[in-house]
Amino acid sequence: MRSITGAGVRATLRTVARALGPEIPLTVHEVSSGTQVLDWSVPREWNVGSARLIGPDGRTVVDVADNPLHLLGYSTPMRARMGLDELRPHLFSMPDRPDWVPYRTSYYNENWGFCLTDRQLTSLPDGEYEVEIDTTLTEGSLTYGEIVLPGETTDEFLITTHTCHPAMANDNCSGIATATLLARELAAAPRRHTFRLLFIPGTIGSITWLAGNRDIVGRIRHGLVLTGLGDRSDPTYKRSRRGDAAVDRAAAMALAESGQPHRIVDFSPYGYDERQFCSPGFDLPVGRFGRGQHGEYPQYHTSADDLDFVTPGSLTDSHALLRRIITICDQNRTWRNTAPYGEPQLGRRGLYRAIGATMNRQAVEMALLWVLNLADGSRSLLDIAERAGLPFDTIVEAADALAGVDLLAEVEVGGV
Amino acid sequence: MRSITGAGVRATLRTVARALGPEIPLTVHEVSSGTQVLDWSVPREWNVGSARLIGPDGRTVVDVADNPLHLLGYSTPMRARMGLDELRPHLFSMPDRPDWVPYRTSYYNENWGFCLTDRQLTSLPDGEYEVEIDTTLTEGSLTYGEIVLPGETTDEFLITTHTCHPAMANDNCSGIATATLLARELAAAPRRHTFRLLFIPGTIGSITWLAGNRDIVGRIRHGLVLTGLGDRSDPTYKRSRRGDAAVDRAAAMALAESGQPHRIVDFSPYGYDERQFCSPGFDLPVGRFGRGQHGEYPQYHTSADDLDFVTPGSLTDSHALLRRIITICDQNRTWRNTAPYGEPQLGRRGLYRAIGATMNRQAVEMALLWVLNLADGSRSLLDIAERAGLPFDTIVEAADALAGVDLLAEVEVGGV
Amino acid sequence: MRSITGAGVRATLRTVARALGPEIPLTVHEVSSGTQVLDWSVPREWNVGSARLIGPDGRTVVDVADNPLHLLGYSTPMRARMGLDELRPHLFSMPDRPDWVPYRTSYYNENWGFCLTDRQLTSLPDGEYEVEIDTTLTEGSLTYGEIVLPGETTDEFLITTHTCHPAMANDNCSGIATATLLARELAAAPRRHTFRLLFIPGTIGSITWLAGNRDIVGRIRHGLVLTGLGDRSDPTYKRSRRGDAAVDRAAAMALAESGQPHRIVDFSPYGYDERQFCSPGFDLPVGRFGRGQHGEYPQYHTSADDLDFVTPGSLTDSHALLRRIITICDQNRTWRNTAPYGEPQLGRRGLYRAIGATMNRQAVEMALLWVLNLADGSRSLLDIAERAGLPFDTIVEAADALAGVDLLAEVEVGGV
Repeated sequence: MRSITGAGVRATLRTVARALGPEIPLTVHEVSSGTQVLDWSVPREWNVGSARLIGPDGRTVVDVADNPLHLLGYSTPMRARMGLDELRPHLFSMPDRPDWVPYRTSYYNENWGFCLTDRQLTSLPDGEYEVEIDTTLTEGSLTYGEIVLPGETTDEFLITTHTCHPAMANDNCSGIATATLLARELAAAPRRHTFRLLFIPGTIGSITWLAGNRDIVGRIRHGLVLTGLGDRSDPTYKRSRRGDAAVDRAAAMALAESGQPHRIVDFSPYGYDERQFCSPGFDLPVGRFGRGQHGEYPQYHTSADDLDFVTPGSLTDSHALLRRIITICDQNRTWRNTAPYGEPQLGRRGLYRAIGATMNRQAVEMALLWVLNLADGSRSLLDIAERAGLPFDTIVEAADALAGVDLLAEVEVGGV
Repeated sequence: MRSITGAGVRATLRTVARALGPEIPLTVHEVSSGTQVLDWSVPREWNVGSARLIGPDGRTVVDVADNPLHLLGYSTPMRARMGLDELRPHLFSMPDRPDWVPYRTSYYNENWGFCLTDRQLTSLPDGEYEVEIDTTLTEGSLTYGEIVLPGETTDEFLITTHTCHPAMANDNCSGIATATLLARELAAAPRRHTFRLLFIPGTIGSITWLAGNRDIVGRIRHGLVLTGLGDRSDPTYKRSRRGDAAVDRAAAMALAESGQPHRIVDFSPYGYDERQFCSPGFDLPVGRFGRGQHGEYPQYHTSADDLDFVTPGSLTDSHALLRRIITICDQNRTWRNTAPYGEPQLGRRGLYRAIGATMNRQAVEMALLWVLNLADGSRSLLDIAERAGLPFDTIVEAADALAGVDLLAEVEVGGV
Repeated sequence: MRSITGAGVRATLRTVARALGPEIPLTVHEVSSGTQVLDWSVPREWNVGSARLIGPDGRTVVDVADNPLHLLGYSTPMRARMGLDELRPHLFSMPDRPDWVPYRTSYYNENWGFCLTDRQLTSLPDGEYEVEIDTTLTEGSLTYGEIVLPGETTDEFLITTHTCHPAMANDNCSGIATATLLARELAAAPRRHTFRLLFIPGTIGSITWLAGNRDIVGRIRHGLVLTGLGDRSDPTYKRSRRGDAAVDRAAAMALAESGQPHRIVDFSPYGYDERQFCSPGFDLPVGRFGRGQHGEYPQYHTSADDLDFVTPGSLTDSHALLRRIITICDQNRTWRNTAPYGEPQLGRRGLYRAIGATMNRQAVEMALLWVLNLADGSRSLLDIAERAGLPFDTIVEAADALAGVDLLAEVEVGGV
């Protein structure tokens, strides 16, 4: 029974913590209701005891215990008896999808209601109904989870996913599960960037985090919002507001390398938490990765976004692409050729042996020459790979070999 | 009997003043002959008493009283009798258009002559002809008209049209009439820019105005040269030298919105008074609007550029497009989001009601989000409309609503 | 018997000097073995007395006296008798081109060897062979030639060609011959730039020159590496590392003007001496001009790169294109309109007469107007010709005429 606050979020974070294991600490933050966060304030905490609609014949029509979607999100408490006409404005269904239950919320206008299939709604008999909504809206807190995996540098890679949508598989169990898996893998391997993973309620969660972490914002070099990773659509990357940030270009490279159909879409101010990270005051290099986009697929925000809607293949593919985007960003460094006047004499330095036999000698030589020629302190390895038309990994290997014989020195790139 | 100086221009400006009515003052400037204006000097004033060519049989061959085009512009006075051979270098016709009288001038080389149809020229009998040209070239003045309509700001929108071409409908009665109508309409409505309209002789007029108004030049934010607005060709916009000035982009937007065939051509240093406004020392954001371009249509600079050559439909269409270009420039402001960190909470500000029911809610919401996201002080509403792919008017309405709740503040954009 | 050092290079430079004649001094530089040059050091000097391989039957298998290619470049001295199995790693042939002798060198790994046709190699009988290689590797010097033709300015145009490849026509007798002819022609005509022509061994020669001439490097405004000018491929220009240097655009213009098929390829860090001139520390505006590129044609680095492989037509065409590229760069100046406010009155300055009758008046007028409009000190004549879509020569003639009446003043463009 997840929402933007409440016990359901806490339970979700406990599940995440269990999946992470004891070595990876998930910090759970509680931010009090009423806290001013940027232009917003943290809402009251919402919890659900029970919620049922009982028909004229005394039989239960819908019960939130059967499906969290049956209750309008943030429903106020209500106990009343009323006729069907009075009840009807509080009942939500999808006439064009008569067997699906829609997902509806009313966070900022007080309301109560039930969501049900249109087939059920249209068969309701006249008579007196009993509404029993035992919810609480209290001064409590907003809950979010945060993992920080320190790297060799304080430059940060931010990964966020929203935790507020209840009972739907693609939107957004897929994001929560994938972020959890990424945290485990990232923690287990060396990393240059410090990785920060956020499990936050949509909109108010990112606003709350941004409001409380202005000092960290300036260290974010790359970021990804994860959502909708398991459906059968092609993988889709939405660019950051900047449009040409390293993460934007790394995503384009990873998707191109994969050889599969994919989409890259420009930033627009509609969507998920990238709206907040890419607001003009922050303008962070944060893109969004997923598959089908909000509103594109009929199952979006309905009970049909279930475990049949997501596939292991899509989840695996999303995960692999994310790993690749992250790797490219993490390995992307800016080097400076320390012997930039003429070509250094490579033969006497044993570089070809350093790189070894896994690549053909001609590709290795070209990679060495490209890196030496372009590593003038103004171009990253990503720039060089793009310009040379060589695989990123080949360029990285060449750069590492050149750095090993002191022909490259790293350039400190300051600021965002 | 218009030319670059003289009584014909003054009579034209009196007609314009009458059409404007008493509320809109047309200032008539007289600049003395010999005044140094930039690299030029104001020429002597030319006036025409009468001009006739009389044939061997005593009958009048051509008389300027029948058609101002019959007399070579700036003809010196001449009284002489001569044979056809001696006369012939002073007679101008169009062999490929035997029934049309060409328009010819000789402003800077002293000469005299008559223009007539080729049919008439080729049928002239041998014999002695009498030339009677009663013109005067005297120390007088160059005359031009100027209307200034102060706006909310001192930023100026310049509209110019040339007054020197006699007796031709498209080039340039169409320009004079349209500028007059625009002045009346602009005067009757609120406007942010100060509008300045010039009725000037071609080339020497704009040079004279520029020479005398160096202090005003720096306030010109947009400008349009109007010429040839009534023929049947597609509307044509010629970009300013800058190529991407706001007026250039507003014209492209207005023409695209119109949905009709049109042409947008790059600046070149050949044409009308945009040559002077776009000379490199001034480099003003001044484009040219018209339909058929000089030299493209056979009627150009001939007696066939008459009232049949222009159509009410073309004039009306040109006028509507000009109004739209002007509106876009006048409404194009640069705003700064005052709450740029995260999205402001729109719901509690009643913005949707402020915008009202004329647009669908989704378009309104997208416009609000785009304006908030891009209004970082570096982008104008025109920039935002182009990037968002939304109608300019929707963006303006969204910006006005946001400014109404203090979510936007205007950025002062200094300089040209 | 050319190589990167030794008597063959000196003999080649004597031939060049004879072809230049006494008026054009070719300075021959000798740089001692062991001199540190950038990351390299000048190698020992290599000279060849004789080199023969004698078969089991006492007959000579190959003799360098027959073809310089028969001896592995920089072979160490060797006198030995050995069986075919022991000999074989020192014999080089081309199995897929059984009648051609390959060109092989071993400058930086000590080795000895013979190059021969594969037909000959595969027919060698077993038995004992006698190796007689009388070469010397001694502390001597590296030899290169340099011509400096002072111009009106100290801005330099660098032309280089490599002298180290023996006995091959396209690579690189064609370069040596063409550079020699260009020197004679450039010396005979006025020139704005100072022209510097280098006849240098590949790689180590340009590195040696760059190491010893750091003060001159900053004066190089344009440069061309000449190689492979005589084969039947289309002319090919390889851009400088900068990609948009004046020489890159002049080459594109010359090739486009020629109307013939051609190729323009982007810079890559593989090739000839442009690798050194375009190393990131120098980053000089030096492109490469030739026809077939290294490795593209089977005759590359073989005995089949002979006098039949190059054609007079290709050499003539390469020479004409180079002349044109050089002319465009040499005539490309940056002017500033001295009367930039409005158009200057051209009529009274007699400009049309100044330009004369070779061009039609309309093209002349347009060229004058374009130059006046764009010569704002930020654009070169090449920029103006590209923007106006007019021939470069027309723009130059217009600019010269305008400068002649003081309507243009030259802008000093500092730095590289």
